[in-house]
Amino acid sequence: MGITKMDHVAIAVEDIEDSAARWVASLGMQAGGIEELPERGVRLCKLRAPGSPALELISPLGDDSPVARFLAKNGEGIHHFCFEVDDIELALEELKSGEADLIHESPVAGAGGSRVAFVHPQSFNGVLIELKQKE
Amino acid sequence: MGITKMDHVAIAVEDIEDSAARWVASLGMQAGGIEELPERGVRLCKLRAPGSPALELISPLGDDSPVARFLAKNGEGIHHFCFEVDDIELALEELKSGEADLIHESPVAGAGGSRVAFVHPQSFNGVLIELKQKE
Repeated sequence: MGITKMDHVAIAVEDIEDSAARWVASLGMQAGGIEELPERGVRLCKLRAPGSPALELISPLGDDSPVARFLAKNGEGIHHFCFEVDDIELALEELKSGEADLIHESPVAGAGGSRVAFVHPQSFNGVLIELKQKE
Repeated sequence: MGITKMDHVAIAVEDIEDSAARWVASLGMQAGGIEELPERGVRLCKLRAPGSPALELISPLGDDSPVARFLAKNGEGIHHFCFEVDDIELALEELKSGEADLIHESPVAGAGGSRVAFVHPQSFNGVLIELKQKE
């Protein structure tokens, strides 16, 4: 599979500014700026702590946001985590051979110009896994 | 706060042996043995990937397991993540001063003889956070 690291853990939140301020004040994390991905329907803010994957706070952007649907169904909470891999096409091929269900059969545009793909949570104990191509 | 690393991400599953085999076969992770914590009502299996916190598969043990209640309410999925901290008593004091709700006001016994405490998810966007004393 070629996992190189866990890149981030994403958390769906209603109010991204307010939430980021709370994680910073209470846990001493460092927050980056707010990024908007209109094609994915999300606003996001990365939080950093030593020795840890980034925490990525995500909130809905636009009328047809998957994050809005997640919040309506589940409320706030952990949404997915992301493994960085050294060869995303190969990783997707391997998963398909192993009969995992893929949301994206080939990479799509992710945050910061990255190439990413999501694996269906029904394949891994209800966990939504994002794969991200190492730069 | 003194976070030193993200120690693990815990995933609640129905069948721990079957699930561990799937994560190993499909994602190339390395699995440790099964550990039982009767006083916490969990069985657990650690999975490792490069550059990543451990994934900790957890399943219910005994009749009054919090993991059984989680599965009944939410189904399988991500249950919590754990930050290792350099001084758990100080971290709990700081969180209390910041008006976070603590499940444990002082450390309890965790996996592998560790000292841990859980913070209530209502304080952090529905995310259950475990703190673990660095050894």
